[in-house]
Amino acid sequence: MTESLPHPTRSDIRIEAVLHALADPIRLRLVRELARRGCEGAPCGSIELPITKSTRTHHLRILREAGVIHMRPEGTARISTLRRDDLDVLYPGLLDSILAAAR
Amino acid sequence: MTESLPHPTRSDIRIEAVLHALADPIRLRLVRELARRGCEGAPCGSIELPITKSTRTHHLRILREAGVIHMRPEGTARISTLRRDDLDVLYPGLLDSILAAAR
Repeated sequence: MTESLPHPTRSDIRIEAVLHALADPIRLRLVRELARRGCEGAPCGSIELPITKSTRTHHLRILREAGVIHMRPEGTARISTLRRDDLDVLYPGLLDSILAAAR
Repeated sequence: MTESLPHPTRSDIRIEAVLHALADPIRLRLVRELARRGCEGAPCGSIELPITKSTRTHHLRILREAGVIHMRPEGTARISTLRRDDLDVLYPGLLDSILAAAR
């Protein structure tokens, strides 16, 4: 079983880190895809992106450490979900405005 | 007279660049102060910050090139204003949610 990864609590999330995590085209694509999939989430490898596995891992770590996504182990995989509730409470309107922005 | 500086047109503004420009505590302070001053704007040197002049110039350039602020020459000074109209049209709710975030 894959080990659990650390996540910031809601009160530890910082706007600068969230904005930095979202300020990248690959990470925005990951976030948009996770928003589309909702609470169910997605196995990390299932979102098609033109990047290597280690680059994907790097981007997912930045999103997780900023508090944008949650990753839970499921068997040998990790399932990512968007921390929509936390972000909507902390920064109402932020995620919606970014998800609505032109690609 | 100080020369005019280049600015992206509204259609050239990109969400990744805007988020990157805002993902920094010093630049967030500049943006919050410019939001407080409104259309009148502020001479670049008038916002108190614990940074050197060249660091301030660097941060203002990132904000200007991303389309977050407008800088116009006025005599020997440059006056900065937040491009609130452009950002509110492109990303409704984005700026408000960031300005409302805890410091």
